[in-house]
Amino acid sequence: MHFELTKKFVGQVINIIENKDNKAAITLMEELHAADIAELYDELDIEQAKFLYLLLDAEKAADVIAELEEDDREKFLEALPSDVIAKQFIEEMDSDDAADVLADLPEKKKDEVLSHIDDIEQAGDIVDLMNYDKDTAGGLMAKEFISANINWTVEECIREVRKMSEEVDEIYFLYIIDDNDKLTGIVSIKDLILNQGSTKIYDICNHDVIKTNTEVSAEDVANAMDKYDLVSMPVTDSIGRLVGRITIDDVVDVIREEAEKDYQLASGIVEDIETTDSVIIQTRARLPWLLIGMTGGIVGALIIGYYQNDIIKYVGLALFLPMIAAMAGNVGVQSSAIVVQGLASKSMGVESISKKLLKELFIGLINGIICSAIVLVYNIITADSLALTITVSSALFIVIVFASVFGTFTPLILDKFKIDPALATGPFITTANDIIGVFIYLTIGSIIFGMV
Amino acid sequence: MHFELTKKFVGQVINIIENKDNKAAITLMEELHAADIAELYDELDIEQAKFLYLLLDAEKAADVIAELEEDDREKFLEALPSDVIAKQFIEEMDSDDAADVLADLPEKKKDEVLSHIDDIEQAGDIVDLMNYDKDTAGGLMAKEFISANINWTVEECIREVRKMSEEVDEIYFLYIIDDNDKLTGIVSIKDLILNQGSTKIYDICNHDVIKTNTEVSAEDVANAMDKYDLVSMPVTDSIGRLVGRITIDDVVDVIREEAEKDYQLASGIVEDIETTDSVIIQTRARLPWLLIGMTGGIVGALIIGYYQNDIIKYVGLALFLPMIAAMAGNVGVQSSAIVVQGLASKSMGVESISKKLLKELFIGLINGIICSAIVLVYNIITADSLALTITVSSALFIVIVFASVFGTFTPLILDKFKIDPALATGPFITTANDIIGVFIYLTIGSIIFGMV
Repeated sequence: MHFELTKKFVGQVINIIENKDNKAAITLMEELHAADIAELYDELDIEQAKFLYLLLDAEKAADVIAELEEDDREKFLEALPSDVIAKQFIEEMDSDDAADVLADLPEKKKDEVLSHIDDIEQAGDIVDLMNYDKDTAGGLMAKEFISANINWTVEECIREVRKMSEEVDEIYFLYIIDDNDKLTGIVSIKDLILNQGSTKIYDICNHDVIKTNTEVSAEDVANAMDKYDLVSMPVTDSIGRLVGRITIDDVVDVIREEAEKDYQLASGIVEDIETTDSVIIQTRARLPWLLIGMTGGIVGALIIGYYQNDIIKYVGLALFLPMIAAMAGNVGVQSSAIVVQGLASKSMGVESISKKLLKELFIGLINGIICSAIVLVYNIITADSLALTITVSSALFIVIVFASVFGTFTPLILDKFKIDPALATGPFITTANDIIGVFIYLTIGSIIFGMV
Repeated sequence: MHFELTKKFVGQVINIIENKDNKAAITLMEELHAADIAELYDELDIEQAKFLYLLLDAEKAADVIAELEEDDREKFLEALPSDVIAKQFIEEMDSDDAADVLADLPEKKKDEVLSHIDDIEQAGDIVDLMNYDKDTAGGLMAKEFISANINWTVEECIREVRKMSEEVDEIYFLYIIDDNDKLTGIVSIKDLILNQGSTKIYDICNHDVIKTNTEVSAEDVANAMDKYDLVSMPVTDSIGRLVGRITIDDVVDVIREEAEKDYQLASGIVEDIETTDSVIIQTRARLPWLLIGMTGGIVGALIIGYYQNDIIKYVGLALFLPMIAAMAGNVGVQSSAIVVQGLASKSMGVESISKKLLKELFIGLINGIICSAIVLVYNIITADSLALTITVSSALFIVIVFASVFGTFTPLILDKFKIDPALATGPFITTANDIIGVFIYLTIGSIIFGMV
């Protein structure tokens, strides 16, 4: 279907670069999409990438830069002078990409690059966009869109499309504004074709525009565009004036990143990392959660230490320590994952928190009964201590019920206090449930064995 | 920005339904987008939903059905006769949605509905689409697209757009075919506006079309559309003839579902469930992994049982059982999550498996050294047994290194054998690592304590 990067291909490219075979390199780059070249860059060192880059035409070079991974891009731009960045990249880029690229540069270099942009209006747009928080509609939007006045005719709109077509790449809709620049309608390019040139735009445009505001979170924008199946969405400022346009490709990235971030947090990874990142970066992303897990383990050791005389007397208690801890963790992770995912995709419905907890209590009761019944049968057959049999099953039951409710409650409460509920999943819930599980188990054990 | 479903609003709607206030209901539904009505349906019982549904105009009713969650839709359609489904839903739907809806119906009802569709061509399209696997490009595509012959002029293309505009809702591109129906180019609606009516399409169309084949997996299509920032992608059959079109809104759903599925598997949930699902469905989705975890716990108990005489002698060994098990699990989940995510987003680069494992070995070594050093210091300060201190730190080190490599290796190997690597994450890795971790710990412990 499309280009796939292979080790062999990368080898060929490196060969071409080492032979300084400009002609072969140019042919190669012409055949590749900017996104493919960006992928290729990921596999080259900075000097090799620079060699290829200097052979690209300006527009493609700008596209490649926009497609690069953030950290690759930073490294690459560091190696280039400010005027080259301004003339060869920024001036060719859409305003949203330009703002993203500039935002990653050091303060001083950023100002230098801006001073080298000849088009004052473009520089102004970029500076405007950099003022918005990256995770809002303002941070996602671009200034490239086509607007038309509500009093225009189809003919006038088509003239505007012709005028703007150089500047705006992907045009599917025109946004219709009133005399005060307020967004009042939307019309598709298709509708322009379908109607007479003299038709008033007012008569054919859709007055019920789905729009967003610069302050709305990127996640909410993504959810809305997904829900309403939109390819682009106009953005207004606080008094309703049209200020930008968000396209679906940027939103797809948001959706992917949000999902990946939740998954990574649930797996105990605190930074967005990939297998291609260095050992140091990967270790840095993973160590924090491991340290939390270790702290949990030490607390667990203290609890077990408190009960160690019981364990010396009834060593059977030790056998099921890992099972109780693991089951507490597994159940908690399941419960919290369902809540986190529901919150992320806004599919939680309108049930109240107490109703959700009640439901989870039921689920915990059923899972608890089934699991503890199985262990009960296993222990009746294999264990020779009735006390142990009763301890393990009753503790497992209580632990599963507790972990279910705790795993549901924690992310819901975090969300209520506007803290990212994904933080509650994975290692945190696992660790907390491990400790509490061990405590419940040994407490029950010491009571039951004490009675025997 | 947009509609948000609240408990209060649902209450008002139920009130309107109970009062059989048709007028209020119609006004309400007119104001809502089909996607919002679908969300609302989720909160109503089947009779309430039917009341609202019967007040909708046909096109909106079809849109609502297409937007409903699969299980809600099934329940809803069960309650309706075949001819109503055919006339009121299927005939108004895009072919891909129609095929999806029909595919979920029981065999007999499916045939009945098909026999009630008057437009033979439409029925044929739907039957064609149902032949494709749901998770391929063929299963994603719709038959609604506009094609134009490579020998046509702009004028002729515009005429075709006019002719087809009723049938095809979202038109951004025309696909250009040769006399054998083979896809050879693409032209945007914008380009039709920008050029003279007499211009040959051959001269203005883009001959380098990014396309896909009916057999390609939905995940690959999604990755390609994301990578190349496409809003739609033409689909060809095995001999290159144009047979369908995939739009970005369907692909966004694929991306979301894939990400959610990987996350759910990692959290030990085997079905796609939501908090709004019933207790039984949620329990069913969660129990399988809990049983695997329990089996792991029993194996762990057997291992500990084998070493129980050591534990009676050196009870300190029991203190760190949960920590070792938990750390083995945490590290394994981290490692496997990074691989699974890299495989899903195709961002693994071209490094060989052995190089990846070597890298992971380094990460494991660093994390292992740091964590075991911290526990070493803790135990030197608090524990009075040197043997325990040495056992815990050396076991923790070995366990972390092992779990890192094992967590990386397992999903990579599954992927090599075309098994979904996401199966390896979460409970499976946790459970396997728990057991192996406990075994390593107790083996080292029995040796070291034996030497004292």
